[in-house]
Amino acid sequence: MVSTDNIPPALEELTERFARFPGVGRKSALRMAMAVLREPREMAVALAKALLRVKDDIKSCSVCGNISQEDPCYICSDSKRDHSIICVVEQSGDIMSIEKGGIYRGVYHVLGGAISPLDGIGPDKLSFTRLAERTKDDKVKEVIIATNPTSEGDATGLYIGEMLKDSKINITRIARGVPVGSDLEYTDPATIARAMEGRGKI
Amino acid sequence: MVSTDNIPPALEELTERFARFPGVGRKSALRMAMAVLREPREMAVALAKALLRVKDDIKSCSVCGNISQEDPCYICSDSKRDHSIICVVEQSGDIMSIEKGGIYRGVYHVLGGAISPLDGIGPDKLSFTRLAERTKDDKVKEVIIATNPTSEGDATGLYIGEMLKDSKINITRIARGVPVGSDLEYTDPATIARAMEGRGKI
Repeated sequence: MVSTDNIPPALEELTERFARFPGVGRKSALRMAMAVLREPREMAVALAKALLRVKDDIKSCSVCGNISQEDPCYICSDSKRDHSIICVVEQSGDIMSIEKGGIYRGVYHVLGGAISPLDGIGPDKLSFTRLAERTKDDKVKEVIIATNPTSEGDATGLYIGEMLKDSKINITRIARGVPVGSDLEYTDPATIARAMEGRGKI
Repeated sequence: MVSTDNIPPALEELTERFARFPGVGRKSALRMAMAVLREPREMAVALAKALLRVKDDIKSCSVCGNISQEDPCYICSDSKRDHSIICVVEQSGDIMSIEKGGIYRGVYHVLGGAISPLDGIGPDKLSFTRLAERTKDDKVKEVIIATNPTSEGDATGLYIGEMLKDSKINITRIARGVPVGSDLEYTDPATIARAMEGRGKI
């Protein structure tokens, strides 16, 4: 059996599998597969093992849902962090971005996505129940909504606001505005509008 | 143990391994590792198996050195191809490019690289001996040098010319010139010079 590119089937299969990754095109996938072919066998074995370790060793934190090799995760088990503030995000990757910001010292809650009826993601698919349980603790003073600035993220934020409206918890939302280092000329009108609405004294 | 990005060690390791591939930066590697985390375990197992299969099933053709799951490879074992013409390339990947051109119907010889004293690649590291043996066959009428248009590729071509100068074989070299679909304004002077030298009647 010979593929369209006339490359050996095993190489073609690996190329196809690499090409399924987000942002990896056929050409890059083939270059990666050729690299595997050139490298010593131990490199391929190590990569294969690393793949399986990611699937086997990484679990969700039972408190916040963040990906972690320990349970609770390093953030939930950190007594120096402020456990009275919970920042709600869609995905674990969002935590990495916020942590890089270096400002936030509270804890997190990972929903697992945003409400999106078109994609069949209703509130039952996300960890709202667990969030409601966590906010019953009197220690919790503030819930910061940091879902993505999309219609799904906004709908998810409104849902949380509705869910917690009878509690005494402060519900806030991270600011929208012009990104630092960006150029106003190239900023979309919706962002400009939000930046105007959210203007503050200097 | 927590890495600089505060991501779980298993995810960090996979990210680092992905980032070693040519053309894959840290950001893309992390996106790929996160995709592995999201996908079902079977996907990771299938990718791990495909990696090992590439190392275990793909060998070099004993005739031309092309990567192949059969020996001889599909080109060397094809009686419809012209076995009197051997096109010499540096790597197996070059064969794929030439085959995509759709013009060439001869066979190939893969050197395994180009002569590069700075990288410690002398003629002994490349398959010149095997090429010399193949060209002793009277059936061989032409050797086309298709090494890369670099100083290493050119040196390698000259070495082959020297090696075969006492044979009756026609030694040719693929044309250099302006690439099809390119813009003369942005073509480098060396390519323009070669295109002028190699000009032909229309």
